[in-house]
Amino acid sequence: MGRTDVMPEPSAIQAYVNDETNRRFFFDNLCELLRCQSVSADSRYAGKLQECADRLACFGREYLDMAEAKVVPTAGHPCVIMHGRTVPNAPRVLIYGHYDVQPAEDLELWDTPPFEPCLKGHTLYGRGTCDDKGQFFMWLCALKTLRSVTGRYPLNITVVLEGEEEIGSAHFTSVLEEYRDELKADAVIISDTSSVVKGVPVLHYSLRGVMCFEVRLRTAACDLHSGVHGGVCTNAPREMAQLIAKLYDESSRVTVPGFYDNVLPIEPWEEERLAKVPFNAEEYSRQLGAELYGEAGFTTNQRRWFRPTLECNGICGGYTGEGSKTIIPASCTAKFSVRLVAHQKPEKVMDCLEKWFVENTPKRAELTFVRGEMTAPYLLEQSGTGAKLFAAAEEAVQKGFGTEPLICRNGGAIGVVAEFSRVFGVPTLLLGLGSPDDRTHGPNEKFEMDNFYKGIVAGAELLSILGRDTL
Amino acid sequence: MGRTDVMPEPSAIQAYVNDETNRRFFFDNLCELLRCQSVSADSRYAGKLQECADRLACFGREYLDMAEAKVVPTAGHPCVIMHGRTVPNAPRVLIYGHYDVQPAEDLELWDTPPFEPCLKGHTLYGRGTCDDKGQFFMWLCALKTLRSVTGRYPLNITVVLEGEEEIGSAHFTSVLEEYRDELKADAVIISDTSSVVKGVPVLHYSLRGVMCFEVRLRTAACDLHSGVHGGVCTNAPREMAQLIAKLYDESSRVTVPGFYDNVLPIEPWEEERLAKVPFNAEEYSRQLGAELYGEAGFTTNQRRWFRPTLECNGICGGYTGEGSKTIIPASCTAKFSVRLVAHQKPEKVMDCLEKWFVENTPKRAELTFVRGEMTAPYLLEQSGTGAKLFAAAEEAVQKGFGTEPLICRNGGAIGVVAEFSRVFGVPTLLLGLGSPDDRTHGPNEKFEMDNFYKGIVAGAELLSILGRDTL
Repeated sequence: MGRTDVMPEPSAIQAYVNDETNRRFFFDNLCELLRCQSVSADSRYAGKLQECADRLACFGREYLDMAEAKVVPTAGHPCVIMHGRTVPNAPRVLIYGHYDVQPAEDLELWDTPPFEPCLKGHTLYGRGTCDDKGQFFMWLCALKTLRSVTGRYPLNITVVLEGEEEIGSAHFTSVLEEYRDELKADAVIISDTSSVVKGVPVLHYSLRGVMCFEVRLRTAACDLHSGVHGGVCTNAPREMAQLIAKLYDESSRVTVPGFYDNVLPIEPWEEERLAKVPFNAEEYSRQLGAELYGEAGFTTNQRRWFRPTLECNGICGGYTGEGSKTIIPASCTAKFSVRLVAHQKPEKVMDCLEKWFVENTPKRAELTFVRGEMTAPYLLEQSGTGAKLFAAAEEAVQKGFGTEPLICRNGGAIGVVAEFSRVFGVPTLLLGLGSPDDRTHGPNEKFEMDNFYKGIVAGAELLSILGRDTL
Repeated sequence: MGRTDVMPEPSAIQAYVNDETNRRFFFDNLCELLRCQSVSADSRYAGKLQECADRLACFGREYLDMAEAKVVPTAGHPCVIMHGRTVPNAPRVLIYGHYDVQPAEDLELWDTPPFEPCLKGHTLYGRGTCDDKGQFFMWLCALKTLRSVTGRYPLNITVVLEGEEEIGSAHFTSVLEEYRDELKADAVIISDTSSVVKGVPVLHYSLRGVMCFEVRLRTAACDLHSGVHGGVCTNAPREMAQLIAKLYDESSRVTVPGFYDNVLPIEPWEEERLAKVPFNAEEYSRQLGAELYGEAGFTTNQRRWFRPTLECNGICGGYTGEGSKTIIPASCTAKFSVRLVAHQKPEKVMDCLEKWFVENTPKRAELTFVRGEMTAPYLLEQSGTGAKLFAAAEEAVQKGFGTEPLICRNGGAIGVVAEFSRVFGVPTLLLGLGSPDDRTHGPNEKFEMDNFYKGIVAGAELLSILGRDTL
């Protein structure tokens, strides 16, 4: 991959975004996008999603000089795929976003109508402002800026916008497979996360994976009368409780052999970066309404970002209605999820857990172990393309925001990142512009317009840098 | 209390019951009673319960020469109270039964209509045949027999028939309180239990009590995202599991201090009686579909009849629907019941349990302990009135059935027995005529007519003995 010889002046990008007319264009088009009720969970809005996808493809053709901008159908809501004109010998970057939003109910909890964007000061309120319309549209505006300032893109650009992220991206993998050749890029860029400090973007270089399973125990043919039979046999919830209790030791570590295999130690540079993330334990505890408590030997942020966890997500057995029913319950079910960290293999951890349950369930109980979905953890390697992507993003954020980004891991899982890694084997840069109080998924979702405009600058700068330096 | 001087010849009672015309009378009237759909749980049948009560009072007046036979209203279904003519200087016996029955649903599981009694060989099928119409009507037939054979009753007789036993006897205590003076007797007799051997009646000299409570744990203000926060705080089902697991030691004994206080050792005579109760462990295990397992140092029958137990009757927390939901559940609830044995005090055991939960719940979880209903355990004292009642019953069963009764404890609780003991302070004789396969509460409930006719003889003999000997 070569270099591009025409480079925009940093000041030119800044100047373009600061221009009032341009800002108005960005703002008005964002508001148009936000007015579209693209609620993927609710089939009544299917037409709105199609309309939203069409509008975005249109925007690409009209304002971004895309060589191709198409709406591709799926078995669910459509995807938008756009390609910039070919830049020979330059790398290709894939920008991902999702145009679908969460339902807005309960409407009464909103101070302003969710689908009528409302600017108060520098804050824009409305469903999708942060998650993810505001964040991905920032990238379209960055492309418009580059086009306008330099007359061309500094590298090959592909944009893919999904319409089912909020409902599990069920059909996105088949789009990746079907359009594999045209979507294959050297790197993926996503803005769909939030920072812990307002006004300071975050670079998430790692995501935890997630793995679900269910354990069912049966201890008798049916629930038994606790008077007639009480004492003569075991009790399913009691056996389940004994298994769950045995899963953890006194230092709150998971006792399953192999559970922590392949977990990387925290590198000195990571410790250093983590120390720069502002954190108030008391405030966090108050926010959760919970005492901070976890694996011995680790801090709270290490526990949620660097360590795997095993949670019982739900348990049910016997009589759970009003009053009492004096039975010996014959069965009990518990659901579990594991958060995996970089380098852990979901299948291997699942094998360890199943083996543990088989070995630790006494023969007086009959065990059924049901494997559920898995999403692999993600780590942006700090070498090769990953390292270059990261350095470029740091430089670009410095240019756009006048500050260095927070750099940390994220405890959650983002399915599409695992898919990009699995299908294309390329790194994903996660540049989060959301603020900690943006209330994504909740009522009165908002987005700080300072982050939007500065993000356009940073985005255009980032693409310029990636075009300038060999990715 | 004196003696009655007119005693029926044993052979006269036997002869009366063996007479075909008399048998037909007993059988026809039992069938009339069984046809009445006195389902207490279902308000649509309220009229049927009233009708059934009226019919029973009528039967008392017409065939039993009762001095008084009345239907007394309650806030629920009515009770029937009947008094025989006064026998001066003789003790008073209170015969208790319940004329209400369990619902018959699912009707498709019945081979013959539940409210149309059907005789096949010596077995009568129908709802209430065993529980409890067949068993209490046996006592009314015994009274009819005594009246017919001797022209009078050998002692003072009171009959009380309840209409809400199957729904918890909610209004029975107020009947006991309101009619205290006329119901007060020297002993209570109940036939509402089943034997473990077909054709051999059982004398239950002890019942377990029961005591319910609920434990609620809260570990956070609301369910938390297991990706964002997983690792930083505890998990309510996990804390509940740790508490439940800690309630039992490795020998399956309850670890709560004071839990076994006041539990009596098994007396040599009880061991002896217990040894006479036929028991096939393999068959029992197969019947339950469960492995036999319980408190170390005790046999299966000792565990269910002589030892207190603590069961988790139900547990619920977090997400329990289809698929998975990756949350850290903020709350978990578990319901428990304790089966208490003779001499244990429900309030004291409840205190021990609450104290244990308070002391063992870590401060990272917020505990709510909710006390539920309590029924005291019951033991027929083997001295004084209790001993005489028991000896008379053994003699009477020998006369009616030609065999000695099984004598054992019962693991269940019968609320009214605890009430008779509490309100009147008198012993209750539990003479069970049901067979182990009578399917009380289930479809195709049945009653062996041999037990019915022999029971009439034994009942009449028992009342004669109690009249002859000073109670």
